[in-house]
Amino acid sequence: MANCIIAQSGGPTSVINSSVVGLLKANKDLDLFDNVYGGLNGIEGILNGSLINLTTLSDEEIQIFRHTPSSGLGSCRYKMKNLEDGAEEYDKLLEILKANDIKAFFYVGGNDSMDTIAKLGKYAVETGLDIKFMGIPKTIDNDLMFTDHTPGFGSAAKFIATTILETYLDSSVYINNGIFILETMGRDTGWLAASACLAQINGKPVADFIYLPETAFDTDKFLSDVNQKFKEQNQVYIVVSEGIRNAEGTFVTEVEKQHDTFGHAQLGGVGNYLKHLIINSGITTRVKSLELGVLQRCAIHCASNVDLQEAYDAGYSALEFARDGMSGYMVGIKRDSNSPYKVSYFLVPADKIANNVKYFPTEWVNTAGNHLTEEALNYFTPLVNGEPSLILENYLPKFKSFNNPKNK
Amino acid sequence: MANCIIAQSGGPTSVINSSVVGLLKANKDLDLFDNVYGGLNGIEGILNGSLINLTTLSDEEIQIFRHTPSSGLGSCRYKMKNLEDGAEEYDKLLEILKANDIKAFFYVGGNDSMDTIAKLGKYAVETGLDIKFMGIPKTIDNDLMFTDHTPGFGSAAKFIATTILETYLDSSVYINNGIFILETMGRDTGWLAASACLAQINGKPVADFIYLPETAFDTDKFLSDVNQKFKEQNQVYIVVSEGIRNAEGTFVTEVEKQHDTFGHAQLGGVGNYLKHLIINSGITTRVKSLELGVLQRCAIHCASNVDLQEAYDAGYSALEFARDGMSGYMVGIKRDSNSPYKVSYFLVPADKIANNVKYFPTEWVNTAGNHLTEEALNYFTPLVNGEPSLILENYLPKFKSFNNPKNK
Repeated sequence: MANCIIAQSGGPTSVINSSVVGLLKANKDLDLFDNVYGGLNGIEGILNGSLINLTTLSDEEIQIFRHTPSSGLGSCRYKMKNLEDGAEEYDKLLEILKANDIKAFFYVGGNDSMDTIAKLGKYAVETGLDIKFMGIPKTIDNDLMFTDHTPGFGSAAKFIATTILETYLDSSVYINNGIFILETMGRDTGWLAASACLAQINGKPVADFIYLPETAFDTDKFLSDVNQKFKEQNQVYIVVSEGIRNAEGTFVTEVEKQHDTFGHAQLGGVGNYLKHLIINSGITTRVKSLELGVLQRCAIHCASNVDLQEAYDAGYSALEFARDGMSGYMVGIKRDSNSPYKVSYFLVPADKIANNVKYFPTEWVNTAGNHLTEEALNYFTPLVNGEPSLILENYLPKFKSFNNPKNK
Repeated sequence: MANCIIAQSGGPTSVINSSVVGLLKANKDLDLFDNVYGGLNGIEGILNGSLINLTTLSDEEIQIFRHTPSSGLGSCRYKMKNLEDGAEEYDKLLEILKANDIKAFFYVGGNDSMDTIAKLGKYAVETGLDIKFMGIPKTIDNDLMFTDHTPGFGSAAKFIATTILETYLDSSVYINNGIFILETMGRDTGWLAASACLAQINGKPVADFIYLPETAFDTDKFLSDVNQKFKEQNQVYIVVSEGIRNAEGTFVTEVEKQHDTFGHAQLGGVGNYLKHLIINSGITTRVKSLELGVLQRCAIHCASNVDLQEAYDAGYSALEFARDGMSGYMVGIKRDSNSPYKVSYFLVPADKIANNVKYFPTEWVNTAGNHLTEEALNYFTPLVNGEPSLILENYLPKFKSFNNPKNK
């Protein structure tokens, strides 16, 4: 008897379950493991013995699960200690794995999950354990090193660009329009906000200004840019990453808290902060701010089919690599060609991913620091291609996950 | 020479341009008017002479325009005076219409627009003018009397129900989950919030509680309900209309402003208010609130095809009714059969629509006042059927409108 286990960790994405389904298919094709278990709620749940058998799922259930957003096996924010600080949880985990005849462990996640894979892979080698540990990338933030991009990002970018097009039109209907601010996720990196450059009408970018954490935010320059643009076209569309900072590297929302410009107001995110900044500057009082929030990471109804397929292929490849005896790695995506778009899958040592961050390239930001170059657009475009065919029930998407009260 | 004009007014919807396209097609089929003009920015723009000729659009442009959300001819919030308070603007408008040989005027809008249609229709009769005035319904709020529902509502309901399914799964991934609050539009009526009942997993409604303006909101009962549900299932999903009121009919957000429970905090909408209420009550600190905002009225990427088609048919019917000599009416939708779903179009005197509101039926609210009955679900279900095929460019929807800076 030889089994494997797959689990999910960290923040959800729209396509994270597709990686699980890709791995299930690889196991069917290669006939490698007797059972593929799903560990519920990541390492945290596995340590509690929360395992389900995914091999018994029907084809229909698998298809629904593939098109279900958000970690359908549940997730956790659990970071394993260093081995020298406590071997107990390592021992407990390996006991559970051994008791279930598990020969390979797959973890779908971001930096922290790859930290777990690196630690467990190292421990297995040191203790002579025959269990392979393999990471499958996942994050809407697109901030993992070495991989061209991460599954989950393309769908988030597509949702952001699509809703920018739509809200731009919504904010353009009156003779006297105002200023619209869209706030995206991305506390440390600007990939999500930068994907706004995809939104174009008549070949012109819809966003007049795009602000990322990677370039210092200058309040005076911002207000002067917005003022001038508002005079020119009587409306302005601004996209801003939640994590923009000033030249000292301080989050602009933190600067506001220190200076308390708006008198004890709980302003929420940076979009709302910029809104008050504009109103107070006297440019116009007609300012709206919209925070896309968690929709960015779960709106599979607006997912990219390329992204969904790549999540699947990354899961499929992970099982192939484990079959080849590899352990302690994360599957990465290499862009072999941009046009026609073509990728392949390769391995990166998991410890090189863990605790590292891939920032948005500042050479793809214009010199004014408020928009992007053609290179950025070329990078993003193929990632948002195609619409998945969701399975419907009563005209709405039919979803299946294993960790919510309605599942029982 | 005989021409007609169509214009849009009030808040946008995802499918409002489809009514314009339906009317263009009817005119082509019936060969009724030489030119169909579009009045930009409603009455306000027409009074400034902002007219474009829609008859010259190519088939491709018309198809793109049909699938473009938000008032593509621009909009206004302009309400005409009563005739006795000032005939000047009536005279000016009719002068412009006469100068352009216009024999029929179509206005796509809600209550206020129907007020305009009623006034103009009356004035035309009184002054013996041969111009027909006809209203085409439009509002995501679904609050127009006599019509079974309004074009624009089905798509908003579909977007709300879909994002509820997705954010529910997003908020269910951890072992310790929290409370999620989704705030919908609907200041006076609860139709949009009520459409949350469409969101089901395993035949169970995803929203544990749904609150509408039509039923008095009781803070103590709310906290006790939420507390009990949170103990039962370790997470709670709440949908709330922005316009909920207490037993005295005061908006709960206004009550908060008066009592200032949270110390000068600018709380934003009611979702954020309930979030603080729950946190302060000690149930849990893990509470998220999401305001869907304007996405509800422009997310054509998640529109209902039934809605898109009905908007088209309402525009088509309006021209047919004008041909038959009718004036001073709004086109209404009659639900002839629910299963199979079948509708027909009829006329309602525009003055009966103006300044009236159709509330959500309280008999479709459960006795606890926090959820809905099967009748509500049956009413909503057919309205969200089908996905429109958007026209794409670089993998994103291609849009065309006539009133934004990128159009030039």
